[in-house]
Amino acid sequence: MRTKICFGKRALMAKNPQQVLALSGGIGGAKLALGLYQELPDDALSVLCNTGDDFTHLGLCISPDIDTVLYTLAGLSNRELGWGRAGETWAFMKALEAIGGQTWFRLGDGDLALHVERTRRLNAGESLSVIMDDIRLRLQVHARILPMCDQSVPTLVHTQQGTLPFQEYFVKLQCKPAITGFEFHNAPSAEPTQAVRELLAADSLQAIIICPSNPFISIDPILAVPGLRDALRSCAAPIIAVSPVIGGKAVKGPTAKMMDELSIPVSASAVAEHYGDLLDGYVLDTEDAMLADSLSLPHRITSTWMRTDEDKRALASDVMDFAGSLRASQQQHG
Amino acid sequence: MRTKICFGKRALMAKNPQQVLALSGGIGGAKLALGLYQELPDDALSVLCNTGDDFTHLGLCISPDIDTVLYTLAGLSNRELGWGRAGETWAFMKALEAIGGQTWFRLGDGDLALHVERTRRLNAGESLSVIMDDIRLRLQVHARILPMCDQSVPTLVHTQQGTLPFQEYFVKLQCKPAITGFEFHNAPSAEPTQAVRELLAADSLQAIIICPSNPFISIDPILAVPGLRDALRSCAAPIIAVSPVIGGKAVKGPTAKMMDELSIPVSASAVAEHYGDLLDGYVLDTEDAMLADSLSLPHRITSTWMRTDEDKRALASDVMDFAGSLRASQQQHG
Repeated sequence: MRTKICFGKRALMAKNPQQVLALSGGIGGAKLALGLYQELPDDALSVLCNTGDDFTHLGLCISPDIDTVLYTLAGLSNRELGWGRAGETWAFMKALEAIGGQTWFRLGDGDLALHVERTRRLNAGESLSVIMDDIRLRLQVHARILPMCDQSVPTLVHTQQGTLPFQEYFVKLQCKPAITGFEFHNAPSAEPTQAVRELLAADSLQAIIICPSNPFISIDPILAVPGLRDALRSCAAPIIAVSPVIGGKAVKGPTAKMMDELSIPVSASAVAEHYGDLLDGYVLDTEDAMLADSLSLPHRITSTWMRTDEDKRALASDVMDFAGSLRASQQQHG
Repeated sequence: MRTKICFGKRALMAKNPQQVLALSGGIGGAKLALGLYQELPDDALSVLCNTGDDFTHLGLCISPDIDTVLYTLAGLSNRELGWGRAGETWAFMKALEAIGGQTWFRLGDGDLALHVERTRRLNAGESLSVIMDDIRLRLQVHARILPMCDQSVPTLVHTQQGTLPFQEYFVKLQCKPAITGFEFHNAPSAEPTQAVRELLAADSLQAIIICPSNPFISIDPILAVPGLRDALRSCAAPIIAVSPVIGGKAVKGPTAKMMDELSIPVSASAVAEHYGDLLDGYVLDTEDAMLADSLSLPHRITSTWMRTDEDKRALASDVMDFAGSLRASQQQHG
């Protein structure tokens, strides 16, 4: 493990002596984020969210991954659907259909408030990060929910049917077209937000957790923000990824199908290889214990399938324990 | 009664041999519009709606009077509230409040579809008249719902507390400030739409009905569109207003309060005077029969209070009968 040097000395996190940063996409990542949120002290967690899925639909600015994390941490998420709000109603969609509006992307009545208010504030010139920080505070979420950047970096999906905007591929076509690659459009013009730069420069940062999100469409867009990967690598805190693949299958979503189409073996170790030298540690499921010997980096074998909130907290606890041991080892050898 | 000459000979309304144009604001006007809609053959009615109340709220383009007429004719209106949709739910407003959004102007979940879709289409460059014509057709409304113009002509309310945007005066401050006058902002830049110009030029136009809407904030904005008052006057069809004042009181809304504040007697005859030489006939309630002698124009005394749908149809029938007698008299003396 390389010795890291924190590149800043700012003590902005003074009232929160321990900070943890989690990188997350939507549902899979949000599960571990919830576990961390419940395990860690208030205000200790920051979740750096993919905004590559963001798009404008019906004139509304929609941030699916940020919203899933927000609703999950606020205790408002719809656990059956895996997105949107619990107890949601659909009068808007029904009325929209009757007047000829597009209905392929479903927006619940309560959920709409977030999109309408975010759109209004963005159009008034506020940044996504400022807006979401205000909203998470209003929903009494004691974790920071950080967009990967305030610029628009839409993920484009290269498929055998041509290049598709992400939500068209993901929702409208239900991930059916075979992918050939991804493009994080306008990524060169993006930059990490002030909040992320400060957090990564803070001595108080204890661990960086890459949640078990889809590496290609949830984590890679975050890492494509110029300077962010280097800033993560330069940070003293260990970077630990939790495998989204268990026993050669993805728990949910198109991760396995994508790996297959990209001619990558569908395995926990292939995900570790994908992240490469970014990682200081890797967490894989007990079902994949036999892969441990093939890994060239410190690892922790534990149960990573999060069915219940207890599972989420237990995994979060394991990951934080692993981070502690990596920090201790780093101090011994640093 | 002056003799009118139709200034165009276009026969665009060929498939609808009889055309009736109703000028309307929101709830009061929509009641008579519904009566006319039910009494007249399909496609015979056009409702020219006030858009002076229109405003942008939460980033959404809202057209209260058009929407009230639309929902009323589509059988979707909320008769308890007097605005919005029947069976409306309020999950959006509740969620909006939780994230700090403005809630003084209430938008129901189903109603939102109209505002979101209209806003999207306006921002894509379509005109309000084209959008609303498409939507009324989708809702199977066999009457045309015509905005008074496609330009923004926001009503400003001059009050003793200063000048207020209309909805701030009307909804937020519940018409409490004493008014001193009205301003139809940007009216000089507006123009009647193609559909209105064609209708007013059509030989098939049988009657123009000014619904019992508020003269100052519902009808005057329509008449302030340059060329529209003259086009109405030049039209062969008789123009008939139905009094919004019965027995010195307005059935609903701030009409009486406004007349009082403007030092105008609160009476049916004062409303007729307000419209002046625009009118060919006037309909007033039986309760105001004693005022008939003071009117200098043809009039019809009937029950104008529309409590039930039967009342609405009966009044519509009376008004159409009155229009027929005015046309006959016009042909005799023309």
